[in-house]
Amino acid sequence: MSPTTPPIVPSHLNGGWVTPEDPDTVLTATDPSTGQPVARVSADGLDIAAAVEFARTTGQRSLQQLTIHERALRIKQLALHLDEHKAELYELSTRTGATKRDNGIDIDGGIGTMFVYSSKSRRELPNSTVIVDGPTEQLSRDGSFIGGHIYTSIPGVAVQINAFNFPVWGMLEKFAPAFIAGVPTIVKPAPQTGYVTERCVRLMVDSGLLPDGSLQLVSGGSVDLLEHLDYRDHLAFTGSARTANILRSHDAVLHGGVRFTAEADSLNAAVLGPDVTPDSPEFTAYIRCLFGELVAKAGQKCTAVRRAIVPAPLVDTVADALGAMIAEKVTVGAPDAEGTTMGPLVSAEQCDAVTGALCELIAAGATVHTGGPQTAEGAFLEPTILTFDPATAADPGAAVHSTEAFGPVVSVLGYDTLDDAVNLTTYGRGSLVATLCAHEPATVRDFTRGIAAHHGRVHLLDRDDARTSTGHGSPMPHLVHGGPGRAGGGEELGGVRGVEHYMQRSAIQGTPNHLTAVTGVWHTGADVRRVTRADVDNGTGVHPFRKSLAEIRVGDQFASELRTVTLDDITAFAEETGDKFYAHTDEEAATANPFFPRRVAHGYLLVSWAAGLFVDAAPGPVLANYGLENLRFLTPVTYDDSIRVELTAKRITPRVTDDYGEVCWDAVLYNQNDEIVATYDVLTLVAKER
Amino acid sequence: MSPTTPPIVPSHLNGGWVTPEDPDTVLTATDPSTGQPVARVSADGLDIAAAVEFARTTGQRSLQQLTIHERALRIKQLALHLDEHKAELYELSTRTGATKRDNGIDIDGGIGTMFVYSSKSRRELPNSTVIVDGPTEQLSRDGSFIGGHIYTSIPGVAVQINAFNFPVWGMLEKFAPAFIAGVPTIVKPAPQTGYVTERCVRLMVDSGLLPDGSLQLVSGGSVDLLEHLDYRDHLAFTGSARTANILRSHDAVLHGGVRFTAEADSLNAAVLGPDVTPDSPEFTAYIRCLFGELVAKAGQKCTAVRRAIVPAPLVDTVADALGAMIAEKVTVGAPDAEGTTMGPLVSAEQCDAVTGALCELIAAGATVHTGGPQTAEGAFLEPTILTFDPATAADPGAAVHSTEAFGPVVSVLGYDTLDDAVNLTTYGRGSLVATLCAHEPATVRDFTRGIAAHHGRVHLLDRDDARTSTGHGSPMPHLVHGGPGRAGGGEELGGVRGVEHYMQRSAIQGTPNHLTAVTGVWHTGADVRRVTRADVDNGTGVHPFRKSLAEIRVGDQFASELRTVTLDDITAFAEETGDKFYAHTDEEAATANPFFPRRVAHGYLLVSWAAGLFVDAAPGPVLANYGLENLRFLTPVTYDDSIRVELTAKRITPRVTDDYGEVCWDAVLYNQNDEIVATYDVLTLVAKER
Repeated sequence: MSPTTPPIVPSHLNGGWVTPEDPDTVLTATDPSTGQPVARVSADGLDIAAAVEFARTTGQRSLQQLTIHERALRIKQLALHLDEHKAELYELSTRTGATKRDNGIDIDGGIGTMFVYSSKSRRELPNSTVIVDGPTEQLSRDGSFIGGHIYTSIPGVAVQINAFNFPVWGMLEKFAPAFIAGVPTIVKPAPQTGYVTERCVRLMVDSGLLPDGSLQLVSGGSVDLLEHLDYRDHLAFTGSARTANILRSHDAVLHGGVRFTAEADSLNAAVLGPDVTPDSPEFTAYIRCLFGELVAKAGQKCTAVRRAIVPAPLVDTVADALGAMIAEKVTVGAPDAEGTTMGPLVSAEQCDAVTGALCELIAAGATVHTGGPQTAEGAFLEPTILTFDPATAADPGAAVHSTEAFGPVVSVLGYDTLDDAVNLTTYGRGSLVATLCAHEPATVRDFTRGIAAHHGRVHLLDRDDARTSTGHGSPMPHLVHGGPGRAGGGEELGGVRGVEHYMQRSAIQGTPNHLTAVTGVWHTGADVRRVTRADVDNGTGVHPFRKSLAEIRVGDQFASELRTVTLDDITAFAEETGDKFYAHTDEEAATANPFFPRRVAHGYLLVSWAAGLFVDAAPGPVLANYGLENLRFLTPVTYDDSIRVELTAKRITPRVTDDYGEVCWDAVLYNQNDEIVATYDVLTLVAKER
Repeated sequence: MSPTTPPIVPSHLNGGWVTPEDPDTVLTATDPSTGQPVARVSADGLDIAAAVEFARTTGQRSLQQLTIHERALRIKQLALHLDEHKAELYELSTRTGATKRDNGIDIDGGIGTMFVYSSKSRRELPNSTVIVDGPTEQLSRDGSFIGGHIYTSIPGVAVQINAFNFPVWGMLEKFAPAFIAGVPTIVKPAPQTGYVTERCVRLMVDSGLLPDGSLQLVSGGSVDLLEHLDYRDHLAFTGSARTANILRSHDAVLHGGVRFTAEADSLNAAVLGPDVTPDSPEFTAYIRCLFGELVAKAGQKCTAVRRAIVPAPLVDTVADALGAMIAEKVTVGAPDAEGTTMGPLVSAEQCDAVTGALCELIAAGATVHTGGPQTAEGAFLEPTILTFDPATAADPGAAVHSTEAFGPVVSVLGYDTLDDAVNLTTYGRGSLVATLCAHEPATVRDFTRGIAAHHGRVHLLDRDDARTSTGHGSPMPHLVHGGPGRAGGGEELGGVRGVEHYMQRSAIQGTPNHLTAVTGVWHTGADVRRVTRADVDNGTGVHPFRKSLAEIRVGDQFASELRTVTLDDITAFAEETGDKFYAHTDEEAATANPFFPRRVAHGYLLVSWAAGLFVDAAPGPVLANYGLENLRFLTPVTYDDSIRVELTAKRITPRVTDDYGEVCWDAVLYNQNDEIVATYDVLTLVAKER
């Protein structure tokens, strides 16, 4: 093999690595700094149908054998493994034109996303394969027929078709939530940079941590993955609006029911608030924001700022300040060359495309303030600032609001009023993100409410978060990423929302016993194994607090005896706690209150006594009461009333990394007439073994 | 006008009623019982572009002036108005072939949906125009940069294109959530029954309760609504999969970014569990379920049971029992004729279509057990039961799993094992709903988890809910309606989820002050107006509990002094409450516990004392503490530690129908070292006026 004929990037399919031999159709990925070929890709002969079937059978089976927490822990272990080997990825990624800083976004960003997904999923989702969504709905008066919602894994495969700009993050930010949702992934990276993705997949495969069939890689140029998919499957696309529209028109999406989500480039705006002057700290933060978005990945980010929308009198001031910062700080060159702060575009073709878009914008009235269309051969482009006259900018159909130069190019537009700024921003017709740099809360409120529905994310920058902001262009794993309209109409990430994107929400109706069986969570009205204080005292029953996490079952119940509340009790509690609210201490005023019959017991007295009624005092598996949820006081308790409590194991969550777990207990306080006084959830930590 | 030339159904557009004069293209709706024309519809000359613009401007403006609670109250008032005048709708609806029972589903069901939406939205959503979704995310160590999510109204119009079978419910179940979301509606009913929808719209318009532009009606046959829509708008379609696919292929959806949701007919299954014998109560419940679904609306419901999947040995038993019930109870005839229990199909054409599908099924191996293809003229069809041999049923591609007879037709299929039943059910390739009739919890769990991801809803029927179940075929407003694959891939209803379907979810990042400004909800770290106990005592500050709902503002804060906890306090609390858990009473055992340094104060002591520290005791605007949320104990408090509390007004929710509202207070307990001991939300009722 000659130096100009680099190896073909293997695919990982059906449990093994495959490389097309002597393929007919080959694409070559080139190092944009040198013009040297780096890798070749071809999909010739790859058996995609078998890969989809392998995912749906082996992949589904191996993931469904793990709980959500077990999968989440595996994601953490994979992230640790990648973190350990990330130097390999850095080195390879330099060949794509990425600087060290760019690698931080792509490689560390991808690994960081896995860590966040792992910890959030273990903290916020059940250790189960079924997620309960929202409260139980009463559908019958007697409680025998109720409703609820569950999320279960979609029964197919999650296919990713990714853009060239983030070969690592682009895969991992979709893989982590799909994996935790129990859905196997097939990833098809962009041919220009897919060799970096291949290395990442190889590291993950070699770690031995991947369940069979949970991740496959298609290193191909043009592959019609969609023809093999149906309503069980999910296709997530990141890239140009044009390709998104082609995929969306595919028969498998239109008629086959494939779940399709797209995240496309958009004409993202960064707006300087009307309250900002050139000497305010917001001005500095704003210029830094524009600068960072222009230079990072040489502007090749779908979230980058394309339109800087500023008070009309400040257009030149902003352009000048940004231009000065570019002059001072930017050195365009090969990423591994000394002093380089901005790399080339991914390819000479991409550079031509950006230059073409730039020329369109100039033809449509743009004035070049800094930089301009490329004049030499190659993939290097200087950062470019364009300005527009106000009449052009104010036209909703203007090229500046629809023509995207996917590179280091920003257009500066002026506005008159805040309403104008809202309008200019929305002329992007749907964006991934907008930044407002302003300090005044009313300005921030009005602007944000005005544009939110046109955006997937709004980033609010001012003096107080200028140093801590994660930036306009960085999708955070905690927050949704995507946007309406031009941005593709999709939604990714968003913490556990991102996991649920790979699951089907279904309503479930039935008896409390059946909802308990399906969800694994005890529902009010379902069967219980009841133990009373008398049972415990006379040895015929075991208090559920004496059971370890391994022994306890949902539906295990402790029922206390009644205890009478006297006026003295209420008075003493008021004295001791200091809570002398008139409803507890002033008979006349209490009686005048619309909700109380006369002086009543403190709600805190009731829950404190309830603990006394249900507790099992001696050391045992229950380690601590770490919280309480959903407390509602429903019937007032006045003196001479009595209360009792029923405590039922509702939700059991073993921790995969500790020797204890959480048990959530359903607590119901009744009075002497069996009316419900209060309901709440008691949260305890319980040891796995006695 | 001759008796055979009925009037043209008016449209309500741009704030007034319009009726095409001498239109060229006219469709005639016929009473299927008599064959007499009832109404004519035509879209000739209707200015749809103006209607869309009217909704986006006037409609949006008038709805955005109301809060979510105000809109929800308006929905209740509209429902009351319709309920008062529903006799008109009943009478007109009889002309569509609907029996009194069918009208109960359509008309009372629609009105009931409005009541549920009104009350759930006021109970579960904020009284605002912005909904906060999920918890706040910490994005910086120092808390200066945080993230969250909001829902805001989509900035366009909600267009409905509805099916013929539910002219009232079909509109109201979409209108109510869109209206509460602040989005104006344009409804286009099906021409066969749109005159009933027109009457319903007329009642609503005449009530004077509709804000300008919030509801428009297109009484047309074929209208290309989509060409006027873009990414700001939402199109909800209910009807055939064929039409859904045509709409989904429209350029406005593919490239224009219109939010599109479809709810299409599906081959819904009702499964008889393997644990059921003919003499068990589940068997009776199952036959009743099949019977009800066959007869209601003459089987013209997209949720109706098309496939009865039963243990193989029971195929004939089930068919016989269902056939016997039909023979005993069904009289097919005009809805207003004496003794009629099942009306005609909506039209002779529809009857021909069902007969055609029946013939296809027979050609594909069905045996007619009861009823069969129509032999006479007209729109009447007898209830029909088909059976299939096991080999035919077991073929995933068989016609019985894909050919839908949208009328009173059910196919009975046998299965061997529970896995087979799961497979047969999923051969429908995505359904709105499936019923399992079984008693055994493990069966219910395995079956439901096996099919859930293929279904929008699973209905679990047994002896315990047979009398209270709302039925297989009835979408409940509390629960999501829709389903993957053949069912259209959409989701409607589901309580407040249904409101959120008409809103955009956006991530918001910024400082606590900015998130507070945007959401109207106080965020930790945002500015406070702080009053201490000393301020209150010396008259320099007003305790926030002395402020009425009208006076209080988010960020109003009360800060208590420190109070020291002694060992005697802990011991006394243990004695008085009875909570002698060892962590509070046994120094040695407490010290051995992994979470505690030595004996610690009860969590309930801490929150009780906190109330004593923050309370303002005298009668005032704060009426009651009705609950508590999200309590977490973060740092143990041992004897000789001290605690203090900061209470900050976080969320203020005036009730539109009461002279008080809710205030949610953010409570943080600190110890003497300013470590956070506990965090929670205190829920109070506060009078609107002092």
